[in-house]
Amino acid sequence: MAEILLRRLAELATLSDMPGGLTRLFLSPAHKRAVGLVEGWMREAGLETHVDAVGNLVGRKGGGKKLLLGSHIDTVRDAGWYDGNFGVLAAIAAVEAAGDLPYGVEIIAFGDEEGVRFPQTLSGSRAVAGTFDPAALAGRDADGISMGEALAAFGGDPAGIAALARNPAAILGYVELHIEQGPVLEAEQLPVGVVTAINGASRFAVAVTGDAGHAGTVPMPMRRDALTASAEMVLAVEAIGRSSPELVATVGALSVHPGAPNSVPGVVKFSIDVRAPVDAARHEAVVAITSAFDRIAGSRNVDLSMTQTHDAPAVICAGRLREDLAAAVKANGIAPRFLPSGAGHDAMAVADLCPVAMLFVRCKGGISHTPEESITAEDAQTAVDVLVEFLRKLEPNDD
Amino acid sequence: MAEILLRRLAELATLSDMPGGLTRLFLSPAHKRAVGLVEGWMREAGLETHVDAVGNLVGRKGGGKKLLLGSHIDTVRDAGWYDGNFGVLAAIAAVEAAGDLPYGVEIIAFGDEEGVRFPQTLSGSRAVAGTFDPAALAGRDADGISMGEALAAFGGDPAGIAALARNPAAILGYVELHIEQGPVLEAEQLPVGVVTAINGASRFAVAVTGDAGHAGTVPMPMRRDALTASAEMVLAVEAIGRSSPELVATVGALSVHPGAPNSVPGVVKFSIDVRAPVDAARHEAVVAITSAFDRIAGSRNVDLSMTQTHDAPAVICAGRLREDLAAAVKANGIAPRFLPSGAGHDAMAVADLCPVAMLFVRCKGGISHTPEESITAEDAQTAVDVLVEFLRKLEPNDD
Repeated sequence: MAEILLRRLAELATLSDMPGGLTRLFLSPAHKRAVGLVEGWMREAGLETHVDAVGNLVGRKGGGKKLLLGSHIDTVRDAGWYDGNFGVLAAIAAVEAAGDLPYGVEIIAFGDEEGVRFPQTLSGSRAVAGTFDPAALAGRDADGISMGEALAAFGGDPAGIAALARNPAAILGYVELHIEQGPVLEAEQLPVGVVTAINGASRFAVAVTGDAGHAGTVPMPMRRDALTASAEMVLAVEAIGRSSPELVATVGALSVHPGAPNSVPGVVKFSIDVRAPVDAARHEAVVAITSAFDRIAGSRNVDLSMTQTHDAPAVICAGRLREDLAAAVKANGIAPRFLPSGAGHDAMAVADLCPVAMLFVRCKGGISHTPEESITAEDAQTAVDVLVEFLRKLEPNDD
Repeated sequence: MAEILLRRLAELATLSDMPGGLTRLFLSPAHKRAVGLVEGWMREAGLETHVDAVGNLVGRKGGGKKLLLGSHIDTVRDAGWYDGNFGVLAAIAAVEAAGDLPYGVEIIAFGDEEGVRFPQTLSGSRAVAGTFDPAALAGRDADGISMGEALAAFGGDPAGIAALARNPAAILGYVELHIEQGPVLEAEQLPVGVVTAINGASRFAVAVTGDAGHAGTVPMPMRRDALTASAEMVLAVEAIGRSSPELVATVGALSVHPGAPNSVPGVVKFSIDVRAPVDAARHEAVVAITSAFDRIAGSRNVDLSMTQTHDAPAVICAGRLREDLAAAVKANGIAPRFLPSGAGHDAMAVADLCPVAMLFVRCKGGISHTPEESITAEDAQTAVDVLVEFLRKLEPNDD
């Protein structure tokens, strides 16, 4: 079974918006083709499928209260093959292998987890949870296309998103399989682990504005260089991220304007991403970053704008689903390892609808978001086996 | 006189290869028409004119050893009205006003200073200096037209370029008026300044390679972040640029890969541009930058590559011509301000033939290469007055 699963992941990875690598942004042509490919596999597994108003691919099987399964099929730029995609295809494999179940199952391939294209993210999982903010439709990508325009071109229906919200009374819970994207399982030689919490995250879009000028003619003391000011800010973010062991703080995107070798940079735009398992620690870090930026902008006489683009509280994975997942791990002869998630996941948004649980799969070197992402066929098999065991044991009535 | 000069500059600015703005590339139809217009003004000023084999417009007056004056009439795309053009028309006005002189004068409107159209640049001034490389004729523009083909279509003569080299024994020197393209004169409330040197320039392409990773899951101590390493390098370049008053050092272009808000940057590429009036100071700065980069790359465990993409020595404006220009500034009641030129000029190429000197004219905001380029009528008048004074005082025999 793992061989088929890995072969499908390889085939899915060929659907990309860029040549020579995998980039599949929300509502892009590659996303559209990926929906078509995965939809075929869902049907082979006996699921009834449709693409919903926000671009989620949904496959349903059975009646009554439903267990939601899934992950996302959008990717970062120059991505690996497994982040998101593994969770969707593993769920299809497990549902097919589990056979008839005494409850309904719904597998969702969300389309907007990475947040690369538009300012807002988690559109698909938020729509399902009933927390989608229609204002997100006005957010624009780098080419000036709004999410609403892109969604309409994709075949979605902005006006129909509100109706996607599920009735909590009809949902058993949500379970997501995902590669760990961290080094813990590999270090402890475990194929899978059970997630205890998803760290909270804050993101900001920053613009630093100085004066563009001729790199040869503007003396150093007369410059208001937006890039040197931003370089100080990048280092401040790093220093604050290092100040507490469970905190991470990253500047991942940065662009320079006009961006010519012989021009002093006039405007620099960059992102900040801060995460922590405890919300208070994250908020403290954001305050420290804001204060450092104000000081740097003041001392360098540049203009600063900081806009929060994302603010997600930490989500606790607890209760029956988590214990059932741990029992399924144990039933496969593996000691259950509980660990937090440093990355965000669709489960974060779905937590507003119902209990959520996650199973992590070991990945090589703990790395993700690069073409070097890798998992073994054995670990993929173990993850599917655990999910099959979980599905077979789940009692729909004692919720 | 300044009113006529500014009116002529406005008229010349209407000769453009693009509608709604000024773009006049070397050997273009607009360049051809500009040559015709300026030729008329040269004749009105009593000069004998011709267009030479490389497309320079040349106006001569008087016999004996010759003083060369001039600048260029090609422009960047969407240019201002004054860069280059001012120096040519100011020279015509000054020669007309100076009356009979005890030496010959030659005003040259060079055609290829901006280097926008073909890979090579300074063709006109290099031809006069005898340093034109015939290989440049094979260089092609964006439409695939070679410089040789364009020159023939323009009415030039590729085979005749070698014969344009002047005999150094017959030349007194070269004087070029130009807008400053920097903010120094404006800041010091001076209409003109005397150039000490055209700065030498070194450029490098730098690549810093660490490990891309997930911004949420890779603990800070395990990161090899290419952007935070590069931020330290950007600040090192700035600090070294600030270490000596006439040195400038700039990171103007910088790109981040993968460049997503939730990815730790794996590769950062950026440019370095270092300029100084003294080559030793520039080379020292480059050594200091290289050493700082090695230290930063070592302490952060990232890989570093640095490739030199440009290396031009400084051209010193020294000796009698410079002192005579300063005396003429003083005679006009202005304190002579000596300053280096951060930008390149035709004088750089002509320096291979004879002594060169340059007079800078204050420009609004220190900006150039945009339609916002601006000078005042008063400053234009002052510049012409200084050049007239210089021409009248110059002794042809004590060179």
